[in-house]
Amino acid sequence: MQQVADDHRTAWRTSTDYSFLTMTFQIIDTEPGCEARRGVLETAHGVVATPAFMPCASRAVVRACTCEQLAAVGLQMLICNAYHLLLRPGPEVIAAAGGLHQFMGWQGPLATDSGGYQVFSLSQRAQITEQGVQFRSEVDGSEIFLAPEDAVRLQNQLGADLIMCLDECTPYPCEHEYARASMEMTLRWARRCRQAHHDDSQALFGIVQGSVYHDLRARSARETVAIGFDGYAIGGLSVGESRREMFEALETSLQYLPLDKPRYAMGVGTPLDIIECVQRGVDIFDCVLPTRNARHGSVLTWGGSIKINNARYRDDFRPLEADCKCPACTHHTRAYLHHLFRINEATAWTLLSLHNLHFYARLMERIRQAIGSGELQKLQRELHTWTQRDEQ
Amino acid sequence: MQQVADDHRTAWRTSTDYSFLTMTFQIIDTEPGCEARRGVLETAHGVVATPAFMPCASRAVVRACTCEQLAAVGLQMLICNAYHLLLRPGPEVIAAAGGLHQFMGWQGPLATDSGGYQVFSLSQRAQITEQGVQFRSEVDGSEIFLAPEDAVRLQNQLGADLIMCLDECTPYPCEHEYARASMEMTLRWARRCRQAHHDDSQALFGIVQGSVYHDLRARSARETVAIGFDGYAIGGLSVGESRREMFEALETSLQYLPLDKPRYAMGVGTPLDIIECVQRGVDIFDCVLPTRNARHGSVLTWGGSIKINNARYRDDFRPLEADCKCPACTHHTRAYLHHLFRINEATAWTLLSLHNLHFYARLMERIRQAIGSGELQKLQRELHTWTQRDEQ
Repeated sequence: MQQVADDHRTAWRTSTDYSFLTMTFQIIDTEPGCEARRGVLETAHGVVATPAFMPCASRAVVRACTCEQLAAVGLQMLICNAYHLLLRPGPEVIAAAGGLHQFMGWQGPLATDSGGYQVFSLSQRAQITEQGVQFRSEVDGSEIFLAPEDAVRLQNQLGADLIMCLDECTPYPCEHEYARASMEMTLRWARRCRQAHHDDSQALFGIVQGSVYHDLRARSARETVAIGFDGYAIGGLSVGESRREMFEALETSLQYLPLDKPRYAMGVGTPLDIIECVQRGVDIFDCVLPTRNARHGSVLTWGGSIKINNARYRDDFRPLEADCKCPACTHHTRAYLHHLFRINEATAWTLLSLHNLHFYARLMERIRQAIGSGELQKLQRELHTWTQRDEQ
Repeated sequence: MQQVADDHRTAWRTSTDYSFLTMTFQIIDTEPGCEARRGVLETAHGVVATPAFMPCASRAVVRACTCEQLAAVGLQMLICNAYHLLLRPGPEVIAAAGGLHQFMGWQGPLATDSGGYQVFSLSQRAQITEQGVQFRSEVDGSEIFLAPEDAVRLQNQLGADLIMCLDECTPYPCEHEYARASMEMTLRWARRCRQAHHDDSQALFGIVQGSVYHDLRARSARETVAIGFDGYAIGGLSVGESRREMFEALETSLQYLPLDKPRYAMGVGTPLDIIECVQRGVDIFDCVLPTRNARHGSVLTWGGSIKINNARYRDDFRPLEADCKCPACTHHTRAYLHHLFRINEATAWTLLSLHNLHFYARLMERIRQAIGSGELQKLQRELHTWTQRDEQ
């Protein structure tokens, strides 16, 4: 299958204007004994090797990092948040800039989440009705109404390569009755989003919901697929349920999704979560963990995670990780990063974020290399052991 | 004179270990009609073209910037602060790292200030006696005593290429009697510093004080030169006096300094201050302005300074400055930087700091190019007009 993908890439690479291109997805290898697949996602702004991890650039910036730095540590695609960008700077500003890529200076592939999750989690006074969501802006207090059609139109204005339907992300725990009604509304919203979307250069993803209930996950997946999308997101994960519940809900959801479309596990997760989702057939991930943890001084290394604030690093003149090619490890020691973190210096957030993101980029690269070689299970065991090794 | 400097550089460049080198200073051109000189300062960690500007890396970091980014925008030498580093991380940590260059990952030339200024300005309960300064640590409340000999020993441990005597920086306004007594003590401290300094790889600078009084400035300069230093700093400037008072105090100080040693105007200043000091014969500058102003959203351009927070930049899709090669202007628009600044994002501080520092690097480059060509006065007039043009 390698040949197919390569030919295809060659084809669009010969075109100087490929902004007309719809996203395509090719599976180029699979791993025996599990559902893992290695693929190539092609967007109007370039190629993404899957499984892929997207750092969160919710407000059109990965906090404390420049786009130049992000590209240099091996990141392929970022995800922004339409809700945050609706409030600030506003879609009219981004549209006037020529779209989100131009606005933020990131020329590679971009995704946007619809912002449904933020409407529910951040807005104290969100009212959800069949029509859509009414909420109060946290910036200027104004009342904003967001229908599913508005969420699509907003994301059309932003112009990301992958965009999401408006959904309701149910909390955990959640009664079966609420989860059912919510999932059914998310389905009706998905139909409205599908109908409202006319821009072929953007891939629209449907979102599977249904909390931890197998019957609801199965219905949600089947009916979302019946509507027909360019890819499928699995939402409502990593919201407080146990890992076992998460993987069961994920497995049920994936069972009904077409093999030839990319699958995106929203908000997942830790390195171990990611590889275990990959083994079940997930292609795309996003999570705030590597950057948020970095800003709190929690650093990922292949020897386990470390807390840079710990006094033991005051005179530890090794890099965070031997042989790591990130800017923090290339130029600096643990002792220096400890010092920067202790004086509450923004450069610490920058360097630790870039290190953790580079760790995730390497993690995904190792996962992709393992797929097809029969080595994925071994890597999963390594990450399982690694998880036990975190510094207390 | 160009030949002399070039031969000298070739000589040390052929040596693989030049850590034994004392700083040397060669004047390679002068400007007719004023005292300006273009020179080459050679240190154990590389060459600095003068006149040069040093950004403040007081706590071993230029706030919100990485060393890699600083080198990329054209900075030659940084200045750290021995007082801040004494408190955190402590000189024993930096010595164990192999010195300040190794500790912070900056391989180019470095200077340290003794920290006398900070002892007086930051420490509520500093007591100055003939023996030295007693103050309370702002980190852990402990009592610390710093004699002139301690300040030298501390800077020897840090290992910067240029180090400063301990001095008292008098406030403004300051009675003649206080300024005289203080200046005389600074002279006695300078003798003690000179005696305590035995590391030939570090250039020790004496500091001229004397507030705004010509008699005191003249005595301070003459007697500091009589002690004999590798270079001379002019302290007590930019502390609240008028520009006229500053330049008169500076002129008197410079009049008694040897032509063949580098002169450093501490804490100066704005672009116009800098070029007017250069015209009077100053070689080295440091100032927090470009970085502090950047963090407050004040941006330098050759068309005048702008406040990025201003609503007019919300949809201004031009770079901060056309043709600027800094990372902010290469990749981003005013609208994006406005957005980042409005959401209080550290990446805004990074990008605006790098832009302002690159502006200063270009300013110094333009000044150096003008020296010897008879064009310096024209550049001074341009900067004078430019100063009037700041956005209100």
